[in-house]
Amino acid sequence: MDIYERALKLHKEKKGKLEIKSKVKINDKNDLSLAYSPGVAAVSRLIASDKKSAYTHTNKGNTIAVISDGSAILGLGNLGALAAIPVMEGKCVLFKEFANIDAIPICLDTQDSEEIIKTIKYLAPNYGGINLEDIAAPRCFEIEARLKKELNIPVMHDDQHGTAAVVLAGLINALKIKNISYREAKIIINGAGAAGLAIADLLIKYGFSQLIVLDSKGVIHEGRSDLNLVKEKIAKLTNPEKKKGGLAEVIKNTDVFIGVSQGKVLTREMILSMREKPVIFALANPEPEIMPEVAKAAGAFIVATGRSDYPNQINNVLAFPGIFRGALDNKVDQITDEMLIQAAKNLASLVSTPTPNEILPNPFDKRVVVAVSKAIKVL
Amino acid sequence: MDIYERALKLHKEKKGKLEIKSKVKINDKNDLSLAYSPGVAAVSRLIASDKKSAYTHTNKGNTIAVISDGSAILGLGNLGALAAIPVMEGKCVLFKEFANIDAIPICLDTQDSEEIIKTIKYLAPNYGGINLEDIAAPRCFEIEARLKKELNIPVMHDDQHGTAAVVLAGLINALKIKNISYREAKIIINGAGAAGLAIADLLIKYGFSQLIVLDSKGVIHEGRSDLNLVKEKIAKLTNPEKKKGGLAEVIKNTDVFIGVSQGKVLTREMILSMREKPVIFALANPEPEIMPEVAKAAGAFIVATGRSDYPNQINNVLAFPGIFRGALDNKVDQITDEMLIQAAKNLASLVSTPTPNEILPNPFDKRVVVAVSKAIKVL
Repeated sequence: MDIYERALKLHKEKKGKLEIKSKVKINDKNDLSLAYSPGVAAVSRLIASDKKSAYTHTNKGNTIAVISDGSAILGLGNLGALAAIPVMEGKCVLFKEFANIDAIPICLDTQDSEEIIKTIKYLAPNYGGINLEDIAAPRCFEIEARLKKELNIPVMHDDQHGTAAVVLAGLINALKIKNISYREAKIIINGAGAAGLAIADLLIKYGFSQLIVLDSKGVIHEGRSDLNLVKEKIAKLTNPEKKKGGLAEVIKNTDVFIGVSQGKVLTREMILSMREKPVIFALANPEPEIMPEVAKAAGAFIVATGRSDYPNQINNVLAFPGIFRGALDNKVDQITDEMLIQAAKNLASLVSTPTPNEILPNPFDKRVVVAVSKAIKVL
Repeated sequence: MDIYERALKLHKEKKGKLEIKSKVKINDKNDLSLAYSPGVAAVSRLIASDKKSAYTHTNKGNTIAVISDGSAILGLGNLGALAAIPVMEGKCVLFKEFANIDAIPICLDTQDSEEIIKTIKYLAPNYGGINLEDIAAPRCFEIEARLKKELNIPVMHDDQHGTAAVVLAGLINALKIKNISYREAKIIINGAGAAGLAIADLLIKYGFSQLIVLDSKGVIHEGRSDLNLVKEKIAKLTNPEKKKGGLAEVIKNTDVFIGVSQGKVLTREMILSMREKPVIFALANPEPEIMPEVAKAAGAFIVATGRSDYPNQINNVLAFPGIFRGALDNKVDQITDEMLIQAAKNLASLVSTPTPNEILPNPFDKRVVVAVSKAIKVL
């Protein structure tokens, strides 16, 4: 059986991947009267008079919602709410297994931004945080921005910021191996969806200044007439020489290629046109922009992908469990870029001597969630 | 410590009463690739092409939502979403412990009917059923009716129908002990909120015809000018002699008093004015309409309350776990009155020889959930 057949079998056998467990036993009427009526009335009254006690007397303090509208499921596209359920359940499994967070999958049967925002605001009292997931760009940007502003619990779109944090961590160690500084590094980001724009944003905030971002129409530059607001903003912050054209032109003499779109867009010739010993993060899923062996043969020094069957997997699971563990433990109401940068640094530092085949720690390294969570706090 | 202090202590120690467990282990990259990317993509594709498989390959088939807007929490009133959390968590504990249903507490931060309806419709894909809870009347009637019509999963407001089913079960056995038929029985229902109106409705559908319902303004009768739509409907179906006045007048020469309001409204004199050996269901919480010992001293033959420290507790936990267990197992998309009546009969039949101190089975009797669940199916 291939991996897809085995996954189908597992899901059918288990009938889903999550269950609810009671933390209290209900063996007699006394138990009943403490966990439910009348005893529970005292807890409701307490919370009504002191909202903070929802964090200490209910599950709120360790519970987050993993919310999707099913519009950008994995690499599958817009399959809707029902088809998103197994993915969100999977994400909740990872929150539990990696960070002991109780995460609830919520797949919304609407793809209207205002309705999504409103619904999440209605749901917010139940949770200590909101992980947005697999929501298509550019809708995802507005939804996240609005919720961050209008809610007093941490909200993060993981496809943006979890990815960006792990990419930054990998990049920190890759440049360490190459022994060049972020000031020198010339970087191409191919893909201007949720991940691409968030990576660009975080790299800029870290200090990278020589950055070019491309979308499906080519290089993003100031003055391009077909840019949405988010891309217009990134056009101002990147591509200082206002280059135009396609990937083949702008990749020349750069150090780093970060691919977060789809298709096998990176060629041997493009790699050959880059500076010596380039760094290739070919993160398209399930098929990378170029296969690692081809990239290596063309001179790539360090190659990372989204795949688990090659070295250097850029995997969000390195970030999101620790980010929300830290957010809950340290009671932060906003996950800031500064925290994400610190998380990336902490993650990178777990590899004491990075090598071309080991720029990131193993996701099953127990130190990962601890190191990342320590970064998510108000200083 | 009194029960409230013990409940506060328990909730604080446990930090809430529920947790999420993963049904799959994540010990290595292979596990990760089956439960999450890339394997899970096969499950999403399957569901996208065959919606029914959400029931077999995700948690949907054993998961319900327990949803409140916090507007009528226990006997406490409108304390809002946050203060409703411990109550909904408690309800979810009972679903798990009594019927092995995975129930998710959802407290909504809106009390607008249209917004509640819309939000629940957006959430519906995740669940096999919706248990509405502690939503104030008359809003609860419209919300339930609309959702029943507009969703293809079972929706039940437990404060209405769970209560009604247990009251009917108790009444069946009480009348069996008294040896009078439902045709003869004259019944007073004091309280015309969610529970009172649902009880009246179910008793009428069962066949009771001599029923008078009172709200806080007195007897509900046709032509009363201050009735909302739901009460107008009940006015047509009850009180055939079009009696007016208060409880003291209409309780005379009746057989059964069912109290589902608040306050110690039932007096010794009223019981003395009833027919011989009356049945008193004094269900107001936490203080019954009359204390059982006072009712007995006044001649009451059978007394039931909502309390666990007296005989004959009318407790919803006798009904809702089995109702949703049956709805999920038998894949019903509507919980009908006929099903609820059969559930009440099944519940009543578990007490082979009812006595004045035992009209209902013990909630911890393992036969209860089985007997009730068998009634919830399409015949």
